[in-house]
Amino acid sequence: MSRTDTRRTGRRPGTSDSREQIAVAARSLFAELGYERTSFRKIAASAGVDPALVVHFYGSKEELFRQVMALPPALADALARLADGPRETVGRRLAEVVIGALENPASRTITLGRIRCATTHPDAAALVRETVTRDLRKLAAAVTDDRPDVRAVLIGAEVVGIALARYAVLVEPLASMTASDVIDLVAPTFQHYLVEPLTP
Amino acid sequence: MSRTDTRRTGRRPGTSDSREQIAVAARSLFAELGYERTSFRKIAASAGVDPALVVHFYGSKEELFRQVMALPPALADALARLADGPRETVGRRLAEVVIGALENPASRTITLGRIRCATTHPDAAALVRETVTRDLRKLAAAVTDDRPDVRAVLIGAEVVGIALARYAVLVEPLASMTASDVIDLVAPTFQHYLVEPLTP
Repeated sequence: MSRTDTRRTGRRPGTSDSREQIAVAARSLFAELGYERTSFRKIAASAGVDPALVVHFYGSKEELFRQVMALPPALADALARLADGPRETVGRRLAEVVIGALENPASRTITLGRIRCATTHPDAAALVRETVTRDLRKLAAAVTDDRPDVRAVLIGAEVVGIALARYAVLVEPLASMTASDVIDLVAPTFQHYLVEPLTP
Repeated sequence: MSRTDTRRTGRRPGTSDSREQIAVAARSLFAELGYERTSFRKIAASAGVDPALVVHFYGSKEELFRQVMALPPALADALARLADGPRETVGRRLAEVVIGALENPASRTITLGRIRCATTHPDAAALVRETVTRDLRKLAAAVTDDRPDVRAVLIGAEVVGIALARYAVLVEPLASMTASDVIDLVAPTFQHYLVEPLTP
Protein backbone atom coordinates (compact mmCIF):
# COMPACT_ATOMS: atom_id res chain seq x y z
CA MET A 1 0.00 0.00 0.00
CA SER A 2 2.16 2.84 -1.14
CA ARG A 3 -0.63 5.41 -1.69
CA THR A 4 -2.42 6.73 1.36
CA ASP A 5 -5.65 7.43 -0.56
CA THR A 6 -6.12 3.79 -1.49
CA ARG A 7 -8.99 2.34 0.54
CA ARG A 8 -8.41 -0.38 3.07
CA THR A 9 -10.00 -3.04 0.92
CA GLY A 10 -7.03 -2.70 -1.41
CA ARG A 11 -9.42 -1.95 -4.30
CA ARG A 12 -8.71 1.06 -6.41
CA PRO A 13 -11.47 3.68 -6.43
CA GLY A 14 -13.54 3.31 -9.55
CA THR A 15 -13.48 -0.48 -9.62
CA SER A 16 -15.95 -3.01 -8.28
CA ASP A 17 -17.30 -0.93 -5.38
CA SER A 18 -18.23 1.94 -7.69
CA ARG A 19 -19.57 -0.51 -10.24
CA GLU A 20 -21.92 -2.03 -7.69
CA GLN A 21 -22.98 1.42 -6.43
CA ILE A 22 -23.79 2.41 -10.00
CA ALA A 23 -25.77 -0.80 -10.53
CA VAL A 24 -27.80 -0.25 -7.35
CA ALA A 25 -28.51 3.39 -8.28
CA ALA A 26 -29.45 2.46 -11.86
CA ARG A 27 -31.85 -0.28 -10.71
CA SER A 28 -33.77 2.01 -8.45
CA LEU A 29 -33.89 4.83 -11.01
CA PHE A 30 -35.10 2.50 -13.77
CA ALA A 31 -37.79 1.24 -11.38
CA GLU A 32 -38.80 4.73 -10.28
CA LEU A 33 -38.48 6.79 -13.47
CA GLY A 34 -38.71 4.24 -16.26
CA TYR A 35 -36.23 3.75 -19.09
CA GLU A 36 -36.49 7.05 -20.94
CA ARG A 37 -36.03 9.39 -17.98
CA THR A 38 -33.15 7.46 -16.43
CA SER A 39 -29.93 9.12 -17.62
CA PHE A 40 -26.21 8.45 -17.02
CA ARG A 41 -26.09 11.84 -15.31
CA LYS A 42 -28.86 10.98 -12.83
CA ILE A 43 -27.36 7.56 -12.14
CA ALA A 44 -23.92 9.09 -11.51
CA ALA A 45 -25.41 11.72 -9.17
CA SER A 46 -27.33 9.07 -7.24
CA ALA A 47 -24.28 6.78 -6.98
CA GLY A 48 -21.96 9.68 -6.10
CA VAL A 49 -19.58 9.05 -9.00
CA ASP A 50 -18.51 10.90 -12.12
CA PRO A 51 -20.80 10.31 -15.16
CA ALA A 52 -17.68 9.36 -17.14
CA LEU A 53 -17.27 6.34 -14.86
CA VAL A 54 -20.77 5.10 -15.76
CA VAL A 55 -19.86 5.38 -19.43
CA HIS A 56 -16.53 3.66 -18.75
CA PHE A 57 -18.19 0.67 -17.09
CA TYR A 58 -21.27 0.25 -19.27
CA GLY A 59 -20.74 2.14 -22.54
CA SER A 60 -24.39 2.54 -23.56
CA LYS A 61 -27.67 2.86 -21.71
CA GLU A 62 -28.87 -0.27 -23.49
CA GLU A 63 -25.88 -2.27 -22.20
CA LEU A 64 -26.27 -0.79 -18.72
CA PHE A 65 -29.92 -1.85 -18.65
CA ARG A 66 -29.05 -5.31 -19.97
CA GLN A 67 -26.45 -5.86 -17.26
CA VAL A 68 -27.96 -4.31 -14.16
CA MET A 69 -31.53 -5.46 -14.84
CA ALA A 70 -30.65 -9.09 -15.63
CA LEU A 71 -32.27 -11.70 -13.41
CA PRO A 72 -29.90 -12.53 -10.54
CA PRO A 73 -27.89 -15.68 -11.49
CA ALA A 74 -29.10 -17.46 -8.33
CA LEU A 75 -32.70 -17.01 -9.52
CA ALA A 76 -31.96 -18.26 -13.03
CA ASP A 77 -30.19 -21.29 -11.46
CA ALA A 78 -33.14 -21.97 -9.17
CA LEU A 79 -35.52 -21.91 -12.15
CA ALA A 80 -33.25 -24.25 -14.12
CA ARG A 81 -33.22 -26.80 -11.28
CA LEU A 82 -37.01 -26.92 -10.89
CA ALA A 83 -37.52 -29.50 -13.63
CA ASP A 84 -35.35 -31.99 -11.71
CA GLY A 85 -37.99 -32.63 -9.03
CA PRO A 86 -41.37 -34.42 -9.31
CA ARG A 87 -43.59 -33.23 -12.14
CA GLU A 88 -46.72 -33.27 -9.95
CA THR A 89 -45.35 -30.49 -7.75
CA VAL A 90 -43.31 -28.41 -10.20
CA GLY A 91 -45.95 -25.63 -10.19
CA ARG A 92 -45.66 -25.27 -6.42
CA ARG A 93 -41.85 -25.23 -6.56
CA LEU A 94 -42.01 -22.55 -9.26
CA ALA A 95 -44.42 -20.52 -7.09
CA GLU A 96 -41.97 -20.79 -4.18
CA VAL A 97 -39.07 -19.56 -6.30
CA VAL A 98 -41.04 -16.71 -7.91
CA ILE A 99 -42.72 -15.43 -4.74
CA GLY A 100 -39.44 -15.89 -2.84
CA ALA A 101 -37.70 -13.66 -5.39
CA LEU A 102 -40.45 -11.04 -5.17
CA GLU A 103 -40.31 -11.01 -1.37
CA ASN A 104 -36.60 -10.13 -1.58
CA PRO A 105 -36.27 -6.33 -1.92
CA ALA A 106 -33.28 -6.48 -4.31
CA SER A 107 -34.81 -8.89 -6.81
CA ARG A 108 -38.22 -7.23 -6.42
CA THR A 109 -36.71 -3.89 -7.49
CA ILE A 110 -35.23 -5.55 -10.57
CA THR A 111 -38.50 -7.30 -11.44
CA LEU A 112 -40.71 -4.23 -11.00
CA GLY A 113 -38.14 -2.08 -12.83
CA ARG A 114 -38.08 -4.48 -15.78
CA ILE A 115 -41.87 -4.43 -15.95
CA ARG A 116 -42.04 -0.64 -15.67
CA CYS A 117 -39.39 -0.03 -18.33
CA ALA A 118 -40.70 -2.70 -20.70
CA THR A 119 -44.24 -1.34 -20.58
CA THR A 120 -43.24 2.26 -21.18
CA HIS A 121 -40.41 2.25 -23.72
CA PRO A 122 -39.96 0.22 -26.92
CA ASP A 123 -36.15 -0.19 -26.48
CA ALA A 124 -36.61 -1.51 -22.97
CA ALA A 125 -39.46 -3.72 -24.19
CA ALA A 126 -37.10 -5.23 -26.77
CA LEU A 127 -34.41 -5.79 -24.12
CA VAL A 128 -36.87 -7.43 -21.73
CA ARG A 129 -38.44 -9.56 -24.50
CA GLU A 130 -34.98 -11.03 -25.20
CA THR A 131 -34.83 -12.58 -21.77
CA VAL A 132 -38.20 -12.36 -20.05
CA THR A 133 -39.31 -15.83 -21.01
CA ARG A 134 -35.92 -17.38 -21.82
CA ASP A 135 -35.44 -19.02 -18.43
CA LEU A 136 -39.13 -19.92 -18.20
CA ARG A 137 -39.00 -21.42 -21.68
CA LYS A 138 -36.07 -23.63 -20.67
CA LEU A 139 -38.04 -24.80 -17.67
CA ALA A 140 -41.20 -25.44 -19.72
CA ALA A 141 -39.23 -27.30 -22.39
CA ALA A 142 -37.67 -29.50 -19.70
CA VAL A 143 -41.15 -30.37 -18.42
CA THR A 144 -43.08 -30.89 -21.68
CA ASP A 145 -42.74 -30.69 -25.44
CA ASP A 146 -46.30 -29.36 -25.83
CA ARG A 147 -45.87 -25.66 -26.75
CA PRO A 148 -43.25 -24.71 -24.12
CA ASP A 149 -42.99 -21.22 -25.64
CA VAL A 150 -46.69 -20.55 -25.06
CA ARG A 151 -46.46 -21.95 -21.54
CA ALA A 152 -43.49 -19.71 -20.75
CA VAL A 153 -45.28 -16.52 -21.75
CA LEU A 154 -48.45 -17.48 -19.87
CA ILE A 155 -46.37 -18.04 -16.72
CA GLY A 156 -44.48 -14.78 -17.31
CA ALA A 157 -47.79 -12.91 -17.63
CA GLU A 158 -49.07 -14.45 -14.38
CA VAL A 159 -45.85 -13.41 -12.60
CA VAL A 160 -46.16 -9.84 -13.92
CA GLY A 161 -49.81 -9.56 -12.86
CA ILE A 162 -49.17 -10.88 -9.35
CA ALA A 163 -46.04 -8.72 -8.95
CA LEU A 164 -47.90 -5.54 -9.91
CA ALA A 165 -51.07 -6.25 -7.93
CA ARG A 166 -49.29 -7.31 -4.73
CA TYR A 167 -46.15 -5.16 -4.68
CA ALA A 168 -46.85 -2.08 -6.83
CA VAL A 169 -50.58 -1.29 -6.83
CA LEU A 170 -51.07 -2.95 -3.40
CA VAL A 171 -54.49 -4.43 -4.19
CA GLU A 172 -56.10 -6.08 -1.17
CA PRO A 173 -56.42 -8.75 0.03
CA LEU A 174 -53.41 -9.86 -2.04
CA ALA A 175 -51.08 -7.15 -0.73
CA SER A 176 -51.44 -8.12 2.95
CA MET A 177 -51.43 -11.91 2.59
CA THR A 178 -48.49 -13.94 3.76
CA ALA A 179 -46.08 -15.10 1.05
CA SER A 180 -47.08 -18.65 1.91
CA ASP A 181 -50.77 -17.92 1.17
CA VAL A 182 -49.84 -16.33 -2.17
CA ILE A 183 -47.78 -19.42 -3.06
CA ASP A 184 -50.81 -21.62 -2.30
CA LEU A 185 -52.99 -19.49 -4.60
CA VAL A 186 -50.69 -19.30 -7.63
CA ALA A 187 -49.22 -22.82 -7.46
CA PRO A 188 -52.26 -24.44 -9.19
CA THR A 189 -52.08 -21.87 -12.02
CA PHE A 190 -48.36 -22.49 -12.56
CA GLN A 191 -49.01 -26.24 -12.43
CA HIS A 192 -51.71 -25.84 -15.09
CA TYR A 193 -49.54 -23.68 -17.35
CA LEU A 194 -46.47 -25.93 -16.95
CA VAL A 195 -47.87 -29.44 -16.98
CA GLU A 196 -51.55 -29.77 -17.87
CA PRO A 197 -53.12 -29.66 -21.35
CA LEU A 198 -53.33 -25.94 -22.21
CA THR A 199 -56.76 -26.19 -23.80
CA PRO A 200 -59.50 -28.73 -23.09
CA MET B 1 -79.57 29.89 -35.76
CA SER B 2 -79.01 33.56 -35.36
CA ARG B 3 -75.21 33.41 -34.98
CA THR B 4 -73.19 32.45 -38.01
CA ASP B 5 -70.31 31.02 -35.93
CA THR B 6 -72.53 28.43 -34.29
CA ARG B 7 -71.64 25.00 -35.66
CA ARG B 8 -74.09 23.05 -37.77
CA THR B 9 -74.73 20.53 -35.03
CA GLY B 10 -76.37 23.27 -33.06
CA ARG B 11 -74.05 22.57 -30.11
CA ARG B 12 -72.30 25.46 -28.53
CA PRO B 13 -68.48 25.27 -28.67
CA GLY B 14 -67.13 24.06 -25.36
CA THR B 15 -69.88 21.54 -24.65
CA SER B 16 -70.04 17.82 -25.27
CA ASP B 17 -67.80 17.77 -28.35
CA SER B 18 -64.98 19.48 -26.49
CA ARG B 19 -65.58 17.30 -23.46
CA GLU B 20 -65.16 14.14 -25.53
CA GLN B 21 -62.07 15.57 -27.28
CA ILE B 22 -60.56 16.29 -23.88
CA ALA B 23 -61.38 12.77 -22.66
CA VAL B 24 -59.77 11.18 -25.74
CA ALA B 25 -56.65 13.36 -25.39
CA ALA B 26 -56.40 12.68 -21.65
CA ARG B 27 -56.69 8.90 -22.13
CA SER B 28 -53.88 8.75 -24.61
CA LEU B 29 -51.63 11.04 -22.57
CA PHE B 30 -52.23 9.05 -19.37
CA ALA B 31 -51.37 5.88 -21.29
CA GLU B 32 -48.28 7.40 -22.91
CA LEU B 33 -46.83 9.59 -20.15
CA GLY B 34 -48.26 8.15 -16.95
CA TYR B 35 -50.16 10.03 -14.26
CA GLU B 36 -47.53 12.45 -13.01
CA ARG B 37 -46.42 13.87 -16.34
CA THR B 38 -49.93 14.32 -17.76
CA SER B 39 -50.97 17.92 -17.09
CA PHE B 40 -54.11 19.96 -17.84
CA ARG B 41 -51.93 22.10 -20.10
CA LYS B 42 -50.75 19.13 -22.20
CA ILE B 43 -54.26 17.70 -22.38
CA ALA B 44 -55.65 21.06 -23.52
CA ALA B 45 -52.93 21.43 -26.16
CA SER B 46 -53.56 17.93 -27.47
CA ALA B 47 -57.35 18.44 -27.56
CA GLY B 48 -57.01 21.91 -29.11
CA VAL B 49 -58.92 23.67 -26.33
CA ASP B 50 -58.16 26.23 -23.65
CA PRO B 51 -56.76 24.74 -20.39
CA ALA B 52 -59.49 26.61 -18.50
CA LEU B 53 -62.07 24.45 -20.26
CA VAL B 54 -60.40 21.27 -18.91
CA VAL B 55 -60.59 22.74 -15.41
CA HIS B 56 -64.21 23.78 -16.05
CA PHE B 57 -65.24 20.25 -17.05
CA TYR B 58 -63.21 18.18 -14.60
CA GLY B 59 -62.02 20.40 -11.75
CA SER B 60 -59.09 18.30 -10.54
CA LYS B 61 -56.67 15.89 -12.17
CA GLU B 62 -57.91 13.20 -9.80
CA GLU B 63 -61.51 13.70 -10.93
CA LEU B 64 -60.44 13.84 -14.58
CA PHE B 65 -58.59 10.52 -14.20
CA ARG B 66 -61.55 8.97 -12.38
CA GLN B 67 -63.98 9.96 -15.12
CA VAL B 68 -62.04 9.44 -18.34
CA MET B 69 -60.27 6.25 -17.20
CA ALA B 70 -63.39 4.50 -15.87
CA LEU B 71 -64.24 1.17 -17.48
CA PRO B 72 -66.71 1.77 -20.32
CA PRO B 73 -70.27 1.17 -18.99
CA ALA B 74 -70.90 -1.46 -21.67
CA LEU B 75 -67.95 -3.46 -20.34
CA ALA B 76 -69.10 -3.20 -16.72
CA ASP B 77 -72.59 -4.31 -17.86
CA ALA B 78 -71.14 -7.25 -19.77
CA LEU B 79 -69.20 -8.36 -16.67
CA ALA B 80 -72.31 -8.04 -14.51
CA ARG B 81 -74.33 -10.26 -16.87
CA LEU B 82 -71.74 -13.08 -16.94
CA ALA B 83 -73.02 -14.74 -13.77
CA ASP B 84 -76.45 -15.28 -15.38
CA GLY B 85 -75.22 -18.03 -17.71
CA PRO B 86 -74.08 -21.58 -16.87
CA ARG B 87 -71.46 -21.83 -14.14
CA GLU B 88 -69.41 -24.44 -16.05
CA THR B 89 -68.59 -21.95 -18.80
CA VAL B 90 -68.39 -18.67 -16.90
CA GLY B 91 -64.57 -18.62 -17.20
CA ARG B 92 -64.80 -18.80 -20.98
CA ARG B 93 -67.45 -16.08 -21.13
CA LEU B 94 -65.25 -13.88 -18.94
CA ALA B 95 -62.29 -14.55 -21.25
CA GLU B 96 -64.42 -13.52 -24.23
CA VAL B 97 -65.46 -10.25 -22.58
CA VAL B 98 -61.93 -9.41 -21.36
CA ILE B 99 -60.08 -10.25 -24.57
CA GLY B 100 -62.86 -8.59 -26.59
CA ALA B 101 -62.34 -5.38 -24.61
CA LEU B 102 -58.56 -5.55 -25.07
CA GLU B 103 -58.92 -6.10 -28.82
CA ASN B 104 -60.92 -2.86 -29.04
CA PRO B 105 -58.46 0.07 -29.38
CA ALA B 106 -60.50 2.48 -27.23
CA SER B 107 -60.94 0.19 -24.24
CA ARG B 108 -57.37 -1.14 -24.66
CA THR B 109 -56.01 2.42 -24.31
CA ILE B 110 -58.00 2.85 -21.10
CA THR B 111 -56.86 -0.50 -19.70
CA LEU B 112 -53.17 -0.01 -20.51
CA GLY B 113 -53.35 3.60 -19.28
CA ARG B 114 -54.86 2.51 -15.98
CA ILE B 115 -52.13 -0.09 -15.53
CA ARG B 116 -49.37 2.34 -16.44
CA CYS B 117 -50.63 5.08 -14.14
CA ALA B 118 -51.40 2.73 -11.24
CA THR B 119 -47.96 1.16 -11.35
CA THR B 120 -46.10 4.45 -11.45
CA HIS B 121 -47.93 6.87 -9.15
CA PRO B 122 -49.45 6.35 -5.68
CA ASP B 123 -52.45 8.66 -6.32
CA ALA B 124 -53.31 6.82 -9.52
CA ALA B 125 -52.76 3.49 -7.73
CA ALA B 126 -55.31 4.56 -5.12
CA LEU B 127 -57.80 5.61 -7.81
CA VAL B 128 -57.37 2.34 -9.70
CA ARG B 129 -57.56 0.24 -6.50
CA GLU B 130 -61.00 1.77 -5.82
CA THR B 131 -62.44 0.24 -8.93
CA VAL B 132 -60.04 -2.31 -10.43
CA THR B 133 -61.61 -5.30 -8.77
CA ARG B 134 -65.04 -3.84 -7.94
CA ASP B 135 -66.75 -5.22 -11.03
CA LEU B 136 -64.81 -8.47 -10.83
CA ARG B 137 -65.71 -8.81 -7.14
CA LYS B 138 -69.41 -8.45 -7.97
CA LEU B 139 -69.04 -11.18 -10.58
CA ALA B 140 -67.11 -13.48 -8.22
CA ALA B 141 -69.63 -12.91 -5.42
CA ALA B 142 -72.47 -13.80 -7.78
CA VAL B 143 -70.70 -17.07 -8.64
CA THR B 144 -69.48 -18.22 -5.21
CA ASP B 145 -69.29 -17.20 -1.57
CA ASP B 146 -65.82 -18.72 -1.16
CA ARG B 147 -63.45 -15.70 -0.94
CA PRO B 148 -64.82 -13.65 -3.88
CA ASP B 149 -62.44 -10.79 -3.00
CA VAL B 150 -59.40 -13.04 -3.42
CA ARG B 151 -60.81 -14.45 -6.67
CA ALA B 152 -61.38 -10.94 -8.03
CA VAL B 153 -57.80 -9.83 -7.47
CA LEU B 154 -56.37 -13.05 -8.93
CA ILE B 155 -58.47 -12.53 -12.06
CA GLY B 156 -57.47 -8.87 -12.19
CA ALA B 157 -53.80 -9.83 -11.97
CA GLU B 158 -54.20 -12.35 -14.81
CA VAL B 159 -55.88 -9.69 -16.98
CA VAL B 160 -53.05 -7.21 -16.27
CA GLY B 161 -50.35 -9.76 -17.08
CA ILE B 162 -51.98 -10.84 -20.36
CA ALA B 163 -52.71 -7.22 -21.36
CA LEU B 164 -49.09 -6.16 -20.82
CA ALA B 165 -47.49 -9.23 -22.41
CA ARG B 166 -49.73 -9.26 -25.51
CA TYR B 167 -50.42 -5.58 -26.17
CA ALA B 168 -47.61 -3.56 -24.54
CA VAL B 169 -44.42 -5.65 -24.40
CA LEU B 170 -45.49 -7.73 -27.43
CA VAL B 171 -44.07 -11.02 -26.15
CA GLU B 172 -44.29 -13.82 -28.71
CA PRO B 173 -46.04 -16.10 -29.41
CA LEU B 174 -48.79 -14.39 -27.39
CA ALA B 175 -48.63 -11.11 -29.33
CA SER B 176 -49.32 -12.68 -32.74
CA MET B 177 -51.97 -15.22 -31.75
CA THR B 178 -55.57 -14.74 -32.76
CA ALA B 179 -57.88 -13.39 -30.07
CA SER B 180 -59.74 -16.68 -30.22
CA ASP B 181 -56.56 -18.64 -29.35
CA VAL B 182 -55.86 -16.31 -26.42
CA ILE B 183 -59.43 -16.84 -25.16
CA ASP B 184 -58.89 -20.64 -25.31
CA LEU B 185 -55.68 -20.29 -23.25
CA VAL B 186 -56.95 -18.02 -20.49
CA ALA B 187 -60.49 -19.43 -20.13
CA PRO B 188 -59.35 -22.38 -17.92
CA THR B 189 -57.46 -20.00 -15.61
CA PHE B 190 -60.48 -17.71 -15.26
CA GLN B 191 -62.69 -20.77 -14.67
CA HIS B 192 -60.29 -21.93 -11.94
CA TYR B 193 -60.14 -18.53 -10.25
CA LEU B 194 -63.92 -18.00 -10.47
CA VAL B 195 -65.39 -21.41 -9.73
CA GLU B 196 -62.95 -24.06 -8.55
CA PRO B 197 -61.53 -24.48 -5.03
CA LEU B 198 -58.71 -21.92 -4.82
CA THR B 199 -56.33 -24.22 -2.98
CA PRO B 200 -56.23 -28.04 -3.01
